[in-house]
Amino acid sequence: MRVGVLGATGYTALELLKILVRHPDVEVTGLTTRQEHTPHVSEVHPSLTGRLDLKCEDLRTAELAERAELVFCAVPHGAAMAAVPELLEAGCKVIDLSADYRLSDPAVYESWYGLVHTDPTRLGTTVYGLPELFADDIPGKDLIANPGCYTSTSILGLAPLLAEGLIEPTGIIIDAKSGVSGAGRTPKMTTLYPECNESISAYAVGRHRHTPEIEQVLSKVSGKSVEVLFTPHLVPMDRGILATMYATPTEQRSDDDLLEAMRNYYRGKPFVRVVDRLPATKDVSGTNFCDVTVRQCRGKVLVLSVTDNLIKGASGVAVQNLNLLAGFDETAGLL
Amino acid sequence: MRVGVLGATGYTALELLKILVRHPDVEVTGLTTRQEHTPHVSEVHPSLTGRLDLKCEDLRTAELAERAELVFCAVPHGAAMAAVPELLEAGCKVIDLSADYRLSDPAVYESWYGLVHTDPTRLGTTVYGLPELFADDIPGKDLIANPGCYTSTSILGLAPLLAEGLIEPTGIIIDAKSGVSGAGRTPKMTTLYPECNESISAYAVGRHRHTPEIEQVLSKVSGKSVEVLFTPHLVPMDRGILATMYATPTEQRSDDDLLEAMRNYYRGKPFVRVVDRLPATKDVSGTNFCDVTVRQCRGKVLVLSVTDNLIKGASGVAVQNLNLLAGFDETAGLL
Amino acid sequence: MRVGVLGATGYTALELLKILVRHPDVEVTGLTTRQEHTPHVSEVHPSLTGRLDLKCEDLRTAELAERAELVFCAVPHGAAMAAVPELLEAGCKVIDLSADYRLSDPAVYESWYGLVHTDPTRLGTTVYGLPELFADDIPGKDLIANPGCYTSTSILGLAPLLAEGLIEPTGIIIDAKSGVSGAGRTPKMTTLYPECNESISAYAVGRHRHTPEIEQVLSKVSGKSVEVLFTPHLVPMDRGILATMYATPTEQRSDDDLLEAMRNYYRGKPFVRVVDRLPATKDVSGTNFCDVTVRQCRGKVLVLSVTDNLIKGASGVAVQNLNLLAGFDETAGLL
Amino acid sequence: MRVGVLGATGYTALELLKILVRHPDVEVTGLTTRQEHTPHVSEVHPSLTGRLDLKCEDLRTAELAERAELVFCAVPHGAAMAAVPELLEAGCKVIDLSADYRLSDPAVYESWYGLVHTDPTRLGTTVYGLPELFADDIPGKDLIANPGCYTSTSILGLAPLLAEGLIEPTGIIIDAKSGVSGAGRTPKMTTLYPECNESISAYAVGRHRHTPEIEQVLSKVSGKSVEVLFTPHLVPMDRGILATMYATPTEQRSDDDLLEAMRNYYRGKPFVRVVDRLPATKDVSGTNFCDVTVRQCRGKVLVLSVTDNLIKGASGVAVQNLNLLAGFDETAGLL
Repeated sequence: MRVGVLGATGYTALELLKILVRHPDVEVTGLTTRQEHTPHVSEVHPSLTGRLDLKCEDLRTAELAERAELVFCAVPHGAAMAAVPELLEAGCKVIDLSADYRLSDPAVYESWYGLVHTDPTRLGTTVYGLPELFADDIPGKDLIANPGCYTSTSILGLAPLLAEGLIEPTGIIIDAKSGVSGAGRTPKMTTLYPECNESISAYAVGRHRHTPEIEQVLSKVSGKSVEVLFTPHLVPMDRGILATMYATPTEQRSDDDLLEAMRNYYRGKPFVRVVDRLPATKDVSGTNFCDVTVRQCRGKVLVLSVTDNLIKGASGVAVQNLNLLAGFDETAGLL
Repeated sequence: MRVGVLGATGYTALELLKILVRHPDVEVTGLTTRQEHTPHVSEVHPSLTGRLDLKCEDLRTAELAERAELVFCAVPHGAAMAAVPELLEAGCKVIDLSADYRLSDPAVYESWYGLVHTDPTRLGTTVYGLPELFADDIPGKDLIANPGCYTSTSILGLAPLLAEGLIEPTGIIIDAKSGVSGAGRTPKMTTLYPECNESISAYAVGRHRHTPEIEQVLSKVSGKSVEVLFTPHLVPMDRGILATMYATPTEQRSDDDLLEAMRNYYRGKPFVRVVDRLPATKDVSGTNFCDVTVRQCRGKVLVLSVTDNLIKGASGVAVQNLNLLAGFDETAGLL
Repeated sequence: MRVGVLGATGYTALELLKILVRHPDVEVTGLTTRQEHTPHVSEVHPSLTGRLDLKCEDLRTAELAERAELVFCAVPHGAAMAAVPELLEAGCKVIDLSADYRLSDPAVYESWYGLVHTDPTRLGTTVYGLPELFADDIPGKDLIANPGCYTSTSILGLAPLLAEGLIEPTGIIIDAKSGVSGAGRTPKMTTLYPECNESISAYAVGRHRHTPEIEQVLSKVSGKSVEVLFTPHLVPMDRGILATMYATPTEQRSDDDLLEAMRNYYRGKPFVRVVDRLPATKDVSGTNFCDVTVRQCRGKVLVLSVTDNLIKGASGVAVQNLNLLAGFDETAGLL
Repeated sequence: MRVGVLGATGYTALELLKILVRHPDVEVTGLTTRQEHTPHVSEVHPSLTGRLDLKCEDLRTAELAERAELVFCAVPHGAAMAAVPELLEAGCKVIDLSADYRLSDPAVYESWYGLVHTDPTRLGTTVYGLPELFADDIPGKDLIANPGCYTSTSILGLAPLLAEGLIEPTGIIIDAKSGVSGAGRTPKMTTLYPECNESISAYAVGRHRHTPEIEQVLSKVSGKSVEVLFTPHLVPMDRGILATMYATPTEQRSDDDLLEAMRNYYRGKPFVRVVDRLPATKDVSGTNFCDVTVRQCRGKVLVLSVTDNLIKGASGVAVQNLNLLAGFDETAGLL
């Protein structure tokens, strides 16, 4: 399958390309950038030297659509919804890594992103591409909304317990910690090395845009209105997310019961590992795995979940979605 | 004042010595180690080269007591309670940086530390050396129990709100993140650079020994039985603690009310800075400051508190205790 | 092919196993440790959870030899030469990642390693497994001495220029910088996180054991007696080696001539990338690539070479050697 | 003494202010920025909260000159030479932390900095503020050119040996490694956390602007024309410079002779520590010390020198210059 990447210069694009060049069923045939001098991909991503011989071009959408059967959209929100309709109309399939098609309600999108959605009819009908929950909806679809990194990490920890009614849907606290690559590759003072290194802090308290996404998906899973307090933190490391989550149990259960519920929920799912140990982000670094565990403490259910924010949190799950959409092996290119 | 350090080879001892060599009213006159070859302090701590000309000696307690009017006890718990009574009997004043004299109930000590306390009569009567709360009790005392690092950071965030009855005493969640120096200088696989770097994880969930200490002090502050769920995490940085804390408000108040309560509580306290911003550990790195803030989110009160775990969390507050105990200016050597 | 790993608990073993579980022609059938409780490999290496279902056992050499056709020997020097003869006699092929079979002269080994070599007859006849230089000698061999990490990185930068007579064989300076994983997983104070982080220093000046190895191989390449001044440094990062090398040109040449000589030398070699840019260790992190470049400055030839010390510097090249030895595709499992 | 800082928002300004607020003889009375909203210094530098109550203002030079007797000029090169003449004419003393007054020859400045020098008559007459070499020239001066960070670190290692004729003035190699703060606080992709972290690389090979500065000063010290090959590297740490330097001995001497020459040279200099050990940047982090050592290896003299690039490499030495200029104790505010 010929695939293209719209917006090939960021960190998620790099990880995506690293996976795609090893994927047995895929050929990368088009890369775009807004940089006018059409840099070779190895100039933008030195680590791809000798592994992918392609230029990043300032292509119009139609040009990209000619080159590729499927396009990974790795441009920021706002830019994605400007390009996706054209790509779809040109006959491309699209996996959108931005937030533009994740929320089902245009009003919610507008209130959190401060933008009027320009393609509102596709909201609500687009599949949310978290395969561990919605794998059956993915095959054959034209457009997949790839989940956010904090979102996947949080949801994969909480979904089994909410689905089984083992925790209350409200009063959930998600204390999440992320490496700096999640903030993107655009120069900002806040993500300069000497600002982030040797420091940890919370940010965007009460207003991080992954909040409504987490609530929307978990509400769907539980059949109840889920409400979370989501506190993201920036941690001095390149990659990885740890979500430490606190919920109220609905009934008295042993830790083993809760772990068993998790294991049952993820039976046959190749990329979620339910573990007994306290997971570290390093355990999943560079992989498409999500490691989760659960235990109880002082009357609360404590759920821990780790991913590599660029892989399972972005580009790995995008390829997993590609695999399911196109009928390839779910793990192709990912193990 | 002639001061000695019992156990001079660890990270807290190093920070203590850096402060003491700059302190106007103090002379360091004795350093101990169990290493038999009596290394010069600059061999153990190269950064002290030329700043302190003293050997670390395998001194008996009595010998150290002859050299010093006051001893900072920087040996592990267990070892501290073996040495402190002798030091006191020899006429030394003691500031104990271990956990041995922090808890007031020997049974609680025994259950969390797995040791029978060998000096139980001093528990309950020893001053807990957190000057922002107990400054009046410190002057003239012979023995001060210096607080734990997570403990101080957490307590300084929560105490004003509990003292004023603005948050419930139960259901408090403390999600704390610490740099690696908190784990000490004894070689362990878990704190090797390649294990910690580029990774974050929780540890000691439900069984970290600072839990009873936090609860004891906050119960005293609030007059009610405080219960906390304390989750420590290891973060890839040398130093710094961030405590992200979640509590239930007792009544409807504005964020400004809560901040104002904090500001009132810490009026005249030179080392707590109540800030509007979300504090980062870097803001207090290398200093004796604790930066705290509070805001509300989704029905919870969110308190953030940062310290340098080796300074305000250990050696800085130890010197602050010395200053108060001896009648020096509270900030001597610390600004 | 059934393969085993002697000494499966260190960092090189972990990287080796990550590669082997993805290798199409190989099955891992035996892992050893000196730990008596036979931990599952996922207990020792959490990142392998679900990817390899095997215990690490305290096997005798003969037992391991029954399970595997080829054994990667990942134990320290000294221990390797105790096990290798037995493995070979039992019919196993061996790729030894230790230093025990790299040097051709037992006296040189003894003087640098402080040990009498107990298998001296195999020195001098064992192939030095640096495939870019000695690929033709590897197929069908029973024992391969896998190169050191600093060694490969340095040699791959200098070999083309020495082979072509473009630099003088003496007066070469190798200023090398390594991540901390190169120091191994055994707890030591010097590699604790708070010791290494936020610091760089030289170590083992004039006495690092990779010195004679570099000189031996480069002397073979150049046909002259090569002498290097090798200065290793410890850098606060998990992995990666950069060798910055300074040599004296033998004749006046343009930078392009030198680059062209490098390109010719490595034509058809899949894992050396001759680049124009100044290479960064991040460009090769997690890969089996070595990126090299050359330029002239103030009368000196400056060669820069980077590898991932655990992959191209250890486990990746070990698999590359396996591939050549066994007749697999040279890149199998490595791209 | 009332002092001001021209350009108060960068990393060197922050370190300067941290020192100045503790300095017994100085009051900070003016801070400038080009930001129009006149942020409070604690907004720009949160760590200064409560330690300095001053706004950063968009002051004209004359306004700053009214507020301060001495101005630290912490703006980039080019901007400095535009402001310094005015400050001097207004009666201010100036310590310029930029490169604008370091080189004595305007043509050399122009060729390395790509700018015509607009105040050329002051070049050549301005004191180079490296107190260990030129302390006698500093008292009472109006303008001091504060040295570059790589420059000081390199010169302090080599000067004693060149002054004594113990090494050749040509063929010197300086392989220098710096933390990222040296690249400044202006957002750039190359200094984003995920670009620098877990990576080391050389940069600006053969064209780093500290080269002519090092050569100019060392030529003055040795009385001969010194030529160096200077290779800077970016290391994943906030701060610290290590210079590993290779020179040719002029005669046969023992390592002890060389160390003794260093010790003699720096006798009575409070901020250079000649050490036997291999120095680490961590040993001097946060201090105004420079640790140096020397040993011989394979026919070369190897000199190692470490500083904190922001303190001894910039703001610490600036205050040391202030102290000498104004007749304060040389160490005031710096120990």
